[in-house]
Amino acid sequence: MKRILIDMDEVIADVYPKFLDIFEREFGRRPDRMEFWGKKIYELPGADRVRGYLHDKGFFSDLPVMPGSQEVIRELMDHYEVFINSAAMEFRHSLTEKYDWLEEHFSFIPWKNVIFCGDKRALRGDYMIDDHVKNLRSFEGTPLLFTASHNALETDFIRVNNWEEVRAFFRGQREGA
Amino acid sequence: MKRILIDMDEVIADVYPKFLDIFEREFGRRPDRMEFWGKKIYELPGADRVRGYLHDKGFFSDLPVMPGSQEVIRELMDHYEVFINSAAMEFRHSLTEKYDWLEEHFSFIPWKNVIFCGDKRALRGDYMIDDHVKNLRSFEGTPLLFTASHNALETDFIRVNNWEEVRAFFRGQREGA
Repeated sequence: MKRILIDMDEVIADVYPKFLDIFEREFGRRPDRMEFWGKKIYELPGADRVRGYLHDKGFFSDLPVMPGSQEVIRELMDHYEVFINSAAMEFRHSLTEKYDWLEEHFSFIPWKNVIFCGDKRALRGDYMIDDHVKNLRSFEGTPLLFTASHNALETDFIRVNNWEEVRAFFRGQREGA
Repeated sequence: MKRILIDMDEVIADVYPKFLDIFEREFGRRPDRMEFWGKKIYELPGADRVRGYLHDKGFFSDLPVMPGSQEVIRELMDHYEVFINSAAMEFRHSLTEKYDWLEEHFSFIPWKNVIFCGDKRALRGDYMIDDHVKNLRSFEGTPLLFTASHNALETDFIRVNNWEEVRAFFRGQREGA
């Protein structure tokens, strides 16, 4: 069975509603997505302190599930070995929070198939779905770039804009095989 | 730079002093190491409940460092990219405890080089030092079996009995190269 490595933040967990709330609290306004198209919201001028909230206890506890991800991952698990992986190691609290979040929303994925890491260079699989170009570049299998504001201008990878497109991609792979 | 993947429990963290204490508390005696040679201490007749303590809060917080591991890993880091990895995902509390333990005893290893996982099949590297045969079998690089009671009868792998032998092995690799 081929292995798909699936990232968490901005792929199955949507961090942007929370970032927008924080931004609004800090700056008194809610930026339009096009304002930070091609970058992270905390790369907007003067907004670098927004990133600091990632270290806060609870940040990762209540993120919304990315639409369609549960359903499509269930379907993928009939045909592939699915591993969830996350660069959680930078944020101490995120470890238990992400563990519990997965238990709450993706309890159908066995704990054996979960990886929390720092750098993803030491991971191995056939496909990787990730929003970070640096993770995809070091991957030896087939990389899929999941659209997020910060990667919107990248053109080097097969792009999937949402989970419907992930489903379609893998259906295509199976029909082509 | 070649990559070495190094396991935690029974490789850099010694779980046995704690297991022996628990066994003594439960059964009123301290077993000799030869009694559980070739197996885990909790595989002794009637002792399976000893394994349950792995789920307890604090179990992984205060394990002693395996003698020589800090010094040898520092030396290895001059020549190799060292990743610490641990099958932490089964035990919820172990995530933060192992994170803090590494910070306390191996703060010279960057967080980018730490991986907590379930199954190790999705890891990639050139060498793996581990006490579990199942992890070594699925590894595509060079596997090194770190001696622990439960693997004492295995004969399929290059064996390292302690960190001095790890040092000697890698010195040999570099001289041979």
